[in-house]
Amino acid sequence: MMGEFELIAAIKQLAEGLPANGFEGIGDDCAVLEIGQDEALVFTTDALCEEVHFLREAISARRLGEKALAVNLSDVASMGVRPVAVLLTLSLPNDLPAGWVEEFVAGFTSLCKTHQVALIGGDTTRSKSGITLNITAIGRGAKQHIKRRSDGRVGDIVCVSDCLGASAAGLKEVLRGNFESPLAAIHHHPTAAIEVGAWLGSCKEVHAMMDISDGIASDLTHILKASAVGAEIELSAIPVAEGATLEEALSGGEDYKLLLTVDAASSEAFMRKFEQTFQRPLYPIGRLTASQALVWLEKGVPTQQELRGFCHF
Amino acid sequence: MMGEFELIAAIKQLAEGLPANGFEGIGDDCAVLEIGQDEALVFTTDALCEEVHFLREAISARRLGEKALAVNLSDVASMGVRPVAVLLTLSLPNDLPAGWVEEFVAGFTSLCKTHQVALIGGDTTRSKSGITLNITAIGRGAKQHIKRRSDGRVGDIVCVSDCLGASAAGLKEVLRGNFESPLAAIHHHPTAAIEVGAWLGSCKEVHAMMDISDGIASDLTHILKASAVGAEIELSAIPVAEGATLEEALSGGEDYKLLLTVDAASSEAFMRKFEQTFQRPLYPIGRLTASQALVWLEKGVPTQQELRGFCHF
Repeated sequence: MMGEFELIAAIKQLAEGLPANGFEGIGDDCAVLEIGQDEALVFTTDALCEEVHFLREAISARRLGEKALAVNLSDVASMGVRPVAVLLTLSLPNDLPAGWVEEFVAGFTSLCKTHQVALIGGDTTRSKSGITLNITAIGRGAKQHIKRRSDGRVGDIVCVSDCLGASAAGLKEVLRGNFESPLAAIHHHPTAAIEVGAWLGSCKEVHAMMDISDGIASDLTHILKASAVGAEIELSAIPVAEGATLEEALSGGEDYKLLLTVDAASSEAFMRKFEQTFQRPLYPIGRLTASQALVWLEKGVPTQQELRGFCHF
Repeated sequence: MMGEFELIAAIKQLAEGLPANGFEGIGDDCAVLEIGQDEALVFTTDALCEEVHFLREAISARRLGEKALAVNLSDVASMGVRPVAVLLTLSLPNDLPAGWVEEFVAGFTSLCKTHQVALIGGDTTRSKSGITLNITAIGRGAKQHIKRRSDGRVGDIVCVSDCLGASAAGLKEVLRGNFESPLAAIHHHPTAAIEVGAWLGSCKEVHAMMDISDGIASDLTHILKASAVGAEIELSAIPVAEGATLEEALSGGEDYKLLLTVDAASSEAFMRKFEQTFQRPLYPIGRLTASQALVWLEKGVPTQQELRGFCHF
């Protein structure tokens, strides 16, 4: 069978032979549809499968409801707009314990409430084995606030919105059977950067943006490819979360922080504005280059390190 | 565990406690969002699970790709507007034969092309066992063309857009291992009533509308409840497809024809207009009443027949 990225590439190619009907389609965290004079809607969909994305015994139904929503809202936030609505599909086996669905839905809808997101539809079906969840999220905002992967420019400062690697370190603990550690809790309870994403969307200094779901070693390559640029990233500048390793920060999945590129001329003032707004720093980790290659630096010196992203497939 | 309708009712109740953000949410075939002065978007999502909705050995990957899309486009058509875009999620096990995904995607995108629908995004993940497909479809049309389940009025003529029961009869053949019969082909190759739905949407004589996915014995009750009316349905007027029984026409699933209610005063002229347009009849099967009960008639006389819809859960 084809790998995930091969399959996506094949589907993207077929999709390009179809009419666009006004949508910007596959290739970013969300599809975009401009509506009216000044607004846009964005659309994203994601599945979570039992024993692939989660273990039923490791995460409570309520936490899973919150996580399933958070990872989808993160894709909306990474476009620079706010989520406004979701559709939820539940494919459920017969062997669920009593109360599981009720708890899942309670977790899901309570996070909808926190972020003021409407639950506008869905589907419930039986599954032969294993839980599969699918969520489609819709965001809405000003047309000029939309941040695309393709908007990076040579010279931009590459930044991350928060420390990285805690989720990957937590996943290792979960797979060792340690479901209750603080890092496991971070893995099971990711926070979508809704406020930060909407704020960054409103800042013209921000050029490209995406969320970090596969690790920056993989995710950054999407910005580079879409923007037709390269990058130099300083490994010592990567903000590694407490309890995580540099490798987890670079190649671990599911951090759901934001990766963005900032106009070089205004970047220092912009860093200060971010810190004043959120009481914590934005982390500059490198810059976009004209080389079309991704170069990792160790204190300014290129390294030969081979880095790959997390594979969900 | 709760049944499907119980679960949907519980989710609907929780959803009603959330902000609407301008959407008309759960309760119709699609959610509705008005955009600009005169337009609306509609949204629907549906999953197909292996061994629940289909057998891998009974349907080719290409046909499944077409069917998965058709059943979602049918929900859009039933709102009276045209589908414009879809998102596709594939959760795939490791045991798929070579070429399966390619064939599925080819079938899916070829039907997208037929109906001029954009494929704007999706997700691909591994599944531990069994194929799960999830599709979100988006429709767009004039605000005044949207047909809701709640728009039925006492006196309206209840109509169906085509003959019923062939899919249910085909499913019985599939379950007997007869995958190649003409009825099995109908079950595996449903047609979404895109043109008919968009045309009916443009007709002000049409009040309530929905698609027939669970059999009219079940589906009609949704219109009755949403419109706070009853109905008298004449069993001898039900158009039964060739090879199907009356029971299959009433209680079988997956016909994907349209169920609608038509303004009584203009219904005869409207039936003629439909027939002139599509070269086949629209079938009147009864009328909406003020009684709030669903009464089945046999040549005008009420029967005690117990009728239930098809359960996908």
